[in-house]
Amino acid sequence: MTKADLQNVRWNVYQATCPTRQVLNCISDKWAVLIVGCLLERGRRSGELRRDIEGISQKMLTQTLRALERDGLVHREVFPSVPPRVDYSLTPLGQSLGQIVDQLRQWSEQHVEQVLLCQEQFDAEDRTLGGPAVLSG
Amino acid sequence: MTKADLQNVRWNVYQATCPTRQVLNCISDKWAVLIVGCLLERGRRSGELRRDIEGISQKMLTQTLRALERDGLVHREVFPSVPPRVDYSLTPLGQSLGQIVDQLRQWSEQHVEQVLLCQEQFDAEDRTLGGPAVLSG
Repeated sequence: MTKADLQNVRWNVYQATCPTRQVLNCISDKWAVLIVGCLLERGRRSGELRRDIEGISQKMLTQTLRALERDGLVHREVFPSVPPRVDYSLTPLGQSLGQIVDQLRQWSEQHVEQVLLCQEQFDAEDRTLGGPAVLSG
Repeated sequence: MTKADLQNVRWNVYQATCPTRQVLNCISDKWAVLIVGCLLERGRRSGELRRDIEGISQKMLTQTLRALERDGLVHREVFPSVPPRVDYSLTPLGQSLGQIVDQLRQWSEQHVEQVLLCQEQFDAEDRTLGGPAVLSG
């Protein structure tokens, strides 16, 4: 896509082929949100991220860090020690996203009790009605 | 979980078993973000959502709407017409999340050009270095 092309585009994440959709796909991912949020606090090594984000597999961590680095959100620095040390930190672009992502975390923590109550009600009604409703039109 | 349990908990999305992690998982999902963003504008029928969110399959739409409804974010109303009409709209809880989710969309649209440039650079360096670096420690 040339610069002239870029300037003529009206971005729209609701179009499947719009580049903004790919960007949104990458950042609206549970592991990306947790990694960016974690790095917003301070830079970390891969092993620290693995420890601090409970439940993430090495594969998902490596894969998500690489996607975030490719998008220019995460900076990866290798120190030539033995064994080599690799530090990850947010770029200024990553920090601007981090501010929003952190609001998602805060929202989850602030509204979790309300969400849990809703889930309880939903599941109770669901049992009463005998399982998932079939109407979806 | 009893109310007393809830009050003693310090919520932390970084703990794999914390209920906030489940909430964050549900809302940091690309389809959930697009659906909530779409409903933030106005309520819509399932068919409209399917049309307005390009690329979403009926299965993902039904599944994500159901999860959002269970979490108390989306209200589902059935009108007894023939065929039955089903409308979806955001609850007040969903609207509060919608404000944040909309920032993710705006961020994607505002920073897509920068992200595309970073991806180009990354891919060029990657080719020069002869493929993905092996260090990840």
